[in-house]
Amino acid sequence: MSSPNVFDPKHYPELDSGPRVLLGPGPSMVHPRVLRAMAAPVIGHLDPYFLQLMDRTQDLLRYVFQTKNQLTIPISGTGSAAMEAAVANFIEPGDPVLVCINGYFGHRLTDMIQRYGGEISTIHRSWGEVFTPKEVKEALTAHQAKVVAIVHAETSTGAKQPLGDIAKVVHDQGGILIVDAVTSLGGIPVSVDEVGIDVCYSGTQKCLSVPPGLGPITVSPKAEEKLSERKTIVANWYLDLSMVQKYWGTERTYHHTAPISANYALYEGLRVIAEEGLENRWQRHRQNAELLWEGLEDLDLSLHVPMKFRLEPLTTVRIPDGVDDLKVRKQLLNDYNIEIAGGLGELKGKVWRIGLMGYSSRAENVLLLLTALERILSKQ
Amino acid sequence: MSSPNVFDPKHYPELDSGPRVLLGPGPSMVHPRVLRAMAAPVIGHLDPYFLQLMDRTQDLLRYVFQTKNQLTIPISGTGSAAMEAAVANFIEPGDPVLVCINGYFGHRLTDMIQRYGGEISTIHRSWGEVFTPKEVKEALTAHQAKVVAIVHAETSTGAKQPLGDIAKVVHDQGGILIVDAVTSLGGIPVSVDEVGIDVCYSGTQKCLSVPPGLGPITVSPKAEEKLSERKTIVANWYLDLSMVQKYWGTERTYHHTAPISANYALYEGLRVIAEEGLENRWQRHRQNAELLWEGLEDLDLSLHVPMKFRLEPLTTVRIPDGVDDLKVRKQLLNDYNIEIAGGLGELKGKVWRIGLMGYSSRAENVLLLLTALERILSKQ
Repeated sequence: MSSPNVFDPKHYPELDSGPRVLLGPGPSMVHPRVLRAMAAPVIGHLDPYFLQLMDRTQDLLRYVFQTKNQLTIPISGTGSAAMEAAVANFIEPGDPVLVCINGYFGHRLTDMIQRYGGEISTIHRSWGEVFTPKEVKEALTAHQAKVVAIVHAETSTGAKQPLGDIAKVVHDQGGILIVDAVTSLGGIPVSVDEVGIDVCYSGTQKCLSVPPGLGPITVSPKAEEKLSERKTIVANWYLDLSMVQKYWGTERTYHHTAPISANYALYEGLRVIAEEGLENRWQRHRQNAELLWEGLEDLDLSLHVPMKFRLEPLTTVRIPDGVDDLKVRKQLLNDYNIEIAGGLGELKGKVWRIGLMGYSSRAENVLLLLTALERILSKQ
Repeated sequence: MSSPNVFDPKHYPELDSGPRVLLGPGPSMVHPRVLRAMAAPVIGHLDPYFLQLMDRTQDLLRYVFQTKNQLTIPISGTGSAAMEAAVANFIEPGDPVLVCINGYFGHRLTDMIQRYGGEISTIHRSWGEVFTPKEVKEALTAHQAKVVAIVHAETSTGAKQPLGDIAKVVHDQGGILIVDAVTSLGGIPVSVDEVGIDVCYSGTQKCLSVPPGLGPITVSPKAEEKLSERKTIVANWYLDLSMVQKYWGTERTYHHTAPISANYALYEGLRVIAEEGLENRWQRHRQNAELLWEGLEDLDLSLHVPMKFRLEPLTTVRIPDGVDDLKVRKQLLNDYNIEIAGGLGELKGKVWRIGLMGYSSRAENVLLLLTALERILSKQ
């Protein structure tokens, strides 16, 4: 295709993405209303109507984050970009940072923090376990850290990290707490103000059930103050919140062209959530997760995370000895159009990851998956 | 909205973005086929069908960039993210870089390059002028630079920068050439291989007429080699091409969740372009630009850039003395649903910026704008 005249349409057929049932770690299925919103005509990023939509979206984001934080916006990239925004803006070169690692995304945090010059200390737990406030306190006593980063919902392990007492420990030491809520926001409580999270980020394609492309983030007044007192410029232009917030705030200063359609989708997705009500939504995620857990145990499968710390939106189930990981997943996809995922890192080949997030979290999806899995496993 | 139970739907009405005619500097109007593609069901970012779609999209991107470059992908952010990807990946701390500044986006490049530690030298031209190869050569003789960055189509000024001889000058000195083609790609020739551009980036929301959200970039084998020989890690995780290319290449290693719907839109937008044919498309942009230029001159308005360097997709026209910039633009928007833009930086209050990009570049839009502008100006 090196000449401008060469184009053979048969190699580039019409888009046909098929009827997938998305029960992996994200993206989750998208509500038809949200898909329709994506198809609305694009308007300018400084159009008065779009500016109004931005304000409304911020309100609704504050609702799902359960916060009054002024600086609550969607980053114009996926959840990973929101993670990097948290790192780039709230860690300066030389800042001591404690990272709690019990899965893939803890490692990703350290990779990012190294790039921004943070002085990292880490504490570790096996993949599937969670941290106690005591461990965090001891680590902070050994290495004073200005910033502590922890993952609320480890998508790679299915573990749910309790946060309340950890926030207290961090604040007692004068630090700020960064929390990864990529897989929890909209599916289980993420009570930013009540818990005392300083910087909390997420992605749209998990329990918000909006297509991937935006990364909601919220910043406490204390963290905003830290941002304004930085001694160095943020080493990332696109994610520099001191500039981005001037577009989302009252100044409306152009920074980059907002992804209009993705913001339409987020607005509609948040309306769907608000109409359902957060508490109903959390309950639905819990109920369908329990239905799945019981069903998996009925199939003599073993769940990787103990009940107490088990994440409703993402379940890790151990692959039985002698069962071919990839073969089962391919059969689920090819024979029944069901997507689930394999393990990452330490858990590669050891678990399957089953997501019940947002619009995907429905009883019929659970029954379908269990039946299909039963058929496939019985023939292994 | 601090309680999970509070939600008043009347404050969050259904999305209704209205019938805007987008004749500003982008986003441009989006082809209905592309809008429909956005509404297709989301699938997984490792789904075999999506991986196939990625390959096809890369083919089609190579076609619009007129290149055989293997590393040709859409960055998962807007054009500004693609600009930052070019800077972050191909400039190491201490690298001498020459930036050619004749508008807003040249300044943005220096802002970014500073953040990544490049040793910057600059040459300047008034906003609306372009650089000669001789100027670039003299600057390179005075300050050896490993990288030269220049804007092909300055959206802030409406000037079109000839590139052929400049690429030669840069290569003769052993450097690589980074070109900003945000407003040119898909509207006027951007012949990456023929010109000898090493790193060329763009955005989706200009002449490609796809919603904002992705930033196509292409990298020459020579620049790819430079990337692989870096002595330092790329200081930006999300935009680190050494990792991103493993997802777009044969390894398919997960890096971040691709924005699925935005990629659907890009694929469909590129199909629309391929069906029209690049040469037809360039001609259409030229014809409608000429229609606009003649019409503006008939209204006794003065064009800011001389014909020879005038950019077809984006026209700057001088605001007549005594005419209220903002008032005219507000009338266009409120009375006729037409969006145009004011000037930036040096040209603020001095010019209007009129875009005829992609699906917006149509004779009927030109006639409508000219008629509306005539009515409004006659009543000033």
